[in-house]
Amino acid sequence: MSPADLRERVDKALHEFLQRAVAPLAGISADLAPFGAVTEAFVLDGGKRLRPAFCYWGHRAAGGEDSDELIRAAASLELLQACALVHDDVIDSSDTRRGSPSVHRRFAVIHRRQGWHGDPEAFGSAAAILLGDLALIWADTMLAESGIGVDALQHAFGVWDAMRVEVMCGQYLDVVEQARGGGSVERALRVARYKSAKYTVERPLHLGAALAAADDALLAALSEFGLPIGEAFQLRDDLLGVYGDPAETGKPAGDDLREGKRTVLVAYAIESANDAQRETLRRLLGDPALDEDGVTILRDVIDATGAVRRVEGLIDERYDHAQRALQSPLIDPGAADALRDLAAAATRRAR
Amino acid sequence: MSPADLRERVDKALHEFLQRAVAPLAGISADLAPFGAVTEAFVLDGGKRLRPAFCYWGHRAAGGEDSDELIRAAASLELLQACALVHDDVIDSSDTRRGSPSVHRRFAVIHRRQGWHGDPEAFGSAAAILLGDLALIWADTMLAESGIGVDALQHAFGVWDAMRVEVMCGQYLDVVEQARGGGSVERALRVARYKSAKYTVERPLHLGAALAAADDALLAALSEFGLPIGEAFQLRDDLLGVYGDPAETGKPAGDDLREGKRTVLVAYAIESANDAQRETLRRLLGDPALDEDGVTILRDVIDATGAVRRVEGLIDERYDHAQRALQSPLIDPGAADALRDLAAAATRRAR
Repeated sequence: MSPADLRERVDKALHEFLQRAVAPLAGISADLAPFGAVTEAFVLDGGKRLRPAFCYWGHRAAGGEDSDELIRAAASLELLQACALVHDDVIDSSDTRRGSPSVHRRFAVIHRRQGWHGDPEAFGSAAAILLGDLALIWADTMLAESGIGVDALQHAFGVWDAMRVEVMCGQYLDVVEQARGGGSVERALRVARYKSAKYTVERPLHLGAALAAADDALLAALSEFGLPIGEAFQLRDDLLGVYGDPAETGKPAGDDLREGKRTVLVAYAIESANDAQRETLRRLLGDPALDEDGVTILRDVIDATGAVRRVEGLIDERYDHAQRALQSPLIDPGAADALRDLAAAATRRAR
Repeated sequence: MSPADLRERVDKALHEFLQRAVAPLAGISADLAPFGAVTEAFVLDGGKRLRPAFCYWGHRAAGGEDSDELIRAAASLELLQACALVHDDVIDSSDTRRGSPSVHRRFAVIHRRQGWHGDPEAFGSAAAILLGDLALIWADTMLAESGIGVDALQHAFGVWDAMRVEVMCGQYLDVVEQARGGGSVERALRVARYKSAKYTVERPLHLGAALAAADDALLAALSEFGLPIGEAFQLRDDLLGVYGDPAETGKPAGDDLREGKRTVLVAYAIESANDAQRETLRRLLGDPALDEDGVTILRDVIDATGAVRRVEGLIDERYDHAQRALQSPLIDPGAADALRDLAAAATRRAR
């Protein structure tokens, strides 16, 4: 199954589920129409569908069969992700996501267009918080109603619950780390592990494998691959957040710098900076009014500290470790090939 | 089983679950300690445990037996309620809940005490959004791990999912109604139905009954009781929000007026106001700086329009309808007695 085919099937499953889930809202009140429409637009518009792909191939790695039921279960991860992203954008006051206005911005526009009372931004945040809650609930419903048998679902609920708790804890640790002002490579790596590595790769693999009743040995083998790839994915994302092309990241250039995200990249930069560099970092990082020149200065300083090279080194190490882990005799060879491709795509390495 | 005994068992179940749920957080990071502690403090500190009580008696009404498993399943509703309240307080920027600082205020205090960077209020909201998400996830886990058999749980998941969607939709309709400036009795009643009547009474009854594999006829009989009592409960709450004793409501006097809550009470007042009264309502309702005199003026104007009397009339009508519904031969007589008491307590009627 090609990545494009898988993506198409996941999108179709999401579309069908949301059609069904949104329909009863019209019976409650016509006022709920934007609530359903924005959810659908957000969930169906873009996204690499990485988590469903890891879930699918985790299932195949454990010897499970392809099925539409599996695709639906895997696709439910995108609704969980929608909750995480929508709430994250409220928390960070981000204006854009995937190149479009963030959900709270969309609702602020609805408020203005209707000429309603009160602060449009406050309305937008309120609606986005509730829409995120709804996405979290629907994720659950989509998994439970995927058509997968009750026994297989019972195997998976433990992973599902752990994953959901871990991502919220990771998000909180991230918020704390920003508040603390960062500076610790160890803490930044822990945030990357919980917010991304486990949530984006390891747990989706486990979820798919658990749905095939995988044993602990296989789950451990998948972790040997998934955790390093997940960390490498986040480290790559941190680099793209600073040096990436906005056309590709869907976020304005320098947004992560304006926000002052306390990533491993930034922790390395602070650690290795000389006095002048540290002063520049202190002054510009997290300045919401940072202009293009400021972005360029920061990019150059971070690079000059050697932080970019060190992060690339971490990515390489993790990528190599994960490649070796795929040679485990426990992992189905066809699935291992697909996971090798996914790992390359997620971390931008030639296969 | 007395209401006090039931409350005690529910509290014990919540305490035990949270001990178990919070424990793994320490293994992720010591930084998560306040995350667990605030959740526990919020969930275990007060609350009338109305929803678990309706769930419990819905189960007994359907002929189900008392069990610790049932108590755990019923108690999970308090975690869902924690999510709804914590997110609601963020949305309304409420400073207090149950007489104590709201969750986002508690985290703002932690931020200040630590001397962290950035805006303490923004940190507080971020933490409260994530804590609410966690409570929503834990609600699910607590129900699934209640010890109730898989077959019985399967009966209940449909109710559980519908209830969770309904409460979020009700909250959104409430936010829209505030933004619109209210004035429609019909729309205010719809908000009360979804935000409260279904969520607080009807669906908890159905959840308990579904766990005893109740048929549609019994669910319908419970709705005949639950919907009117739930609406009466919300109408009483609206009156208490304006005329209640702060020592009892846990909120400063006049908070609902300062917030400009668009309740059925307010819709009636606007509908029946003369020109001078309408002007006073327009000027003072929703004024965040409203002082004690302003609160008194508004209270008097709302009462003078006859709105209080009309709301009391709606409560009476609904209370009487619900009482008659309890005579259904489908409802276990012992459970009907307990539901009669609960209905009186929730709506403050002498039995």
